Amino acid sequence: MDFEERVRTGFAKQSFMATLRAELIAVSDGACAISIPHSAGVTQQHGLFHGGVTASLADTAAGFAGFSQMEPDRQPLTVEFKISFLAPARGDRLEARARVVGGGRRVKHVVSEVFSLEGGEEQMVALALVTITATRAVSEI
Amino acid sequence: MDFEERVRTGFAKQSFMATLRAELIAVSDGACAISIPHSAGVTQQHGLFHGGVTASLADTAAGFAGFSQMEPDRQPLTVEFKISFLAPARGDRLEARARVVGGGRRVKHVVSEVFSLEGGEEQMVALALVTITATRAVSEI
Amino acid sequence: MDFEERVRTGFAKQSFMATLRAELIAVSDGACAISIPHSAGVTQQHGLFHGGVTASLADTAAGFAGFSQMEPDRQPLTVEFKISFLAPARGDRLEARARVVGGGRRVKHVVSEVFSLEGGEEQMVALALVTITATRAVSEI
Amino acid sequence: MDFEERVRTGFAKQSFMATLRAELIAVSDGACAISIPHSAGVTQQHGLFHGGVTASLADTAAGFAGFSQMEPDRQPLTVEFKISFLAPARGDRLEARARVVGGGRRVKHVVSEVFSLEGGEEQMVALALVTITATRAVSEI
Repeated sequence: MDFEERVRTGFAKQSFMATLRAELIAVSDGACAISIPHSAGVTQQHGLFHGGVTASLADTAAGFAGFSQMEPDRQPLTVEFKISFLAPARGDRLEARARVVGGGRRVKHVVSEVFSLEGGEEQMVALALVTITATRAVSEI
Repeated sequence: MDFEERVRTGFAKQSFMATLRAELIAVSDGACAISIPHSAGVTQQHGLFHGGVTASLADTAAGFAGFSQMEPDRQPLTVEFKISFLAPARGDRLEARARVVGGGRRVKHVVSEVFSLEGGEEQMVALALVTITATRAVSEI
Repeated sequence: MDFEERVRTGFAKQSFMATLRAELIAVSDGACAISIPHSAGVTQQHGLFHGGVTASLADTAAGFAGFSQMEPDRQPLTVEFKISFLAPARGDRLEARARVVGGGRRVKHVVSEVFSLEGGEEQMVALALVTITATRAVSEI
Repeated sequence: MDFEERVRTGFAKQSFMATLRAELIAVSDGACAISIPHSAGVTQQHGLFHGGVTASLADTAAGFAGFSQMEPDRQPLTVEFKISFLAPARGDRLEARARVVGGGRRVKHVVSEVFSLEGGEEQMVALALVTITATRAVSEI
């Protein structure tokens, strides 16, 4: 099973991603993009995407970006992340684009940029720095 | 409208909290607790609470903790947060407990501790440091 | 006094920057670069640049990047920052390059990239996300 | 060599700590405190402790708190940290108190609280969340 297939299989098992109606847009060596449509179930009090939803996308895309570079017996685990909210998350869709920027075999530093998309335009609404570790098995988590 | 009522009204408008089946457990001057039950819709690939869900609770509890100390014409807005995942988020419920620890009138520093609850036991599974700002109106966001 | 002059005047007053033998390399609208030479006084136990030194440069460059976009009666204040260490900080010099990436008049989100420089080569060794606020006066800090 | 001795030996090798005139105040299993006096060399433009100095203390105390729980052949390495500045860092001394709050054998989550001390009074001026990893040797860094 190559890394793309492993990422797609892992993504399909995250039922919270289904709750958000998330789609895996792209996956390659060290990178991953995930997107969701706007819907009533993902908003805060002003109808914008909830910051927790924005963070969830950033974290998940980062995890799979890291996963794409791990050995086959390893699973990604988020150690921590920070997210800065740059602009209000308006728009029809929200898309997180993550790429590995450093680290070694066990610990990966990943940058996730989150964009709001509306009518052909896009704007970066959040920027996250995520630390992902490679664990051997569920029991190790 | 006192701060407790303002927090409860604001919480009820966040439809993403309804998606998570979140309950406002407690609110007081500078503090807020929010809890959710375990369900299929909020898990990652191993059936544990998804990190994004944990982060969403931490962020939301922090926002309302800050809101409780704002002037009546102000709204809370998360500037940024960081969350460290201390242990796997197992359990029947997840509960975030936030309290303001510093800052001034416009910017509040809030600590959110997230606990997993199971059979009368609780364990801290995540720790977040959240920056909340007081905005005057939606248009300012 | 234009923003470049205000940045240079502010920089000169930070005696900790003199302790690190820091130089202001460049300043423009929304950006700032600061560099220091390697010396015995700034290292950790293996002779590399200390992480606290790396963080100090990232924070200071971010503050002045934000300052360059503030009204004349405002001062920059770091609300918080996060820094991820991507690679060991070897080299002859360390240089932080900061640029404003979002926010409004009062709160600025700044990215600081820190590079190690050695014999014409450079490597990014740290990446920081910094929140800077504009305060009116010292008494407000 | 017990952990206290290992921490003291490691601390003595960090020449940047000597630059700051730092003292190792206390070390125990999973905890460490480091303190510095106020001096002209560690200030920002208003004569307060520089944020980079505050961050350096928080990071270093966290590293040694983690180190105290590592196997003898391991060294602490800061993966990343976030620091929130709660109040201006006035006072005669600055003291960082760190304790391990979670994680496993390889990755430690550490909270560092930084206090300003003046005339018998103390105030928490910063709060940091630090991720420390246990590396086998310098070459692994």
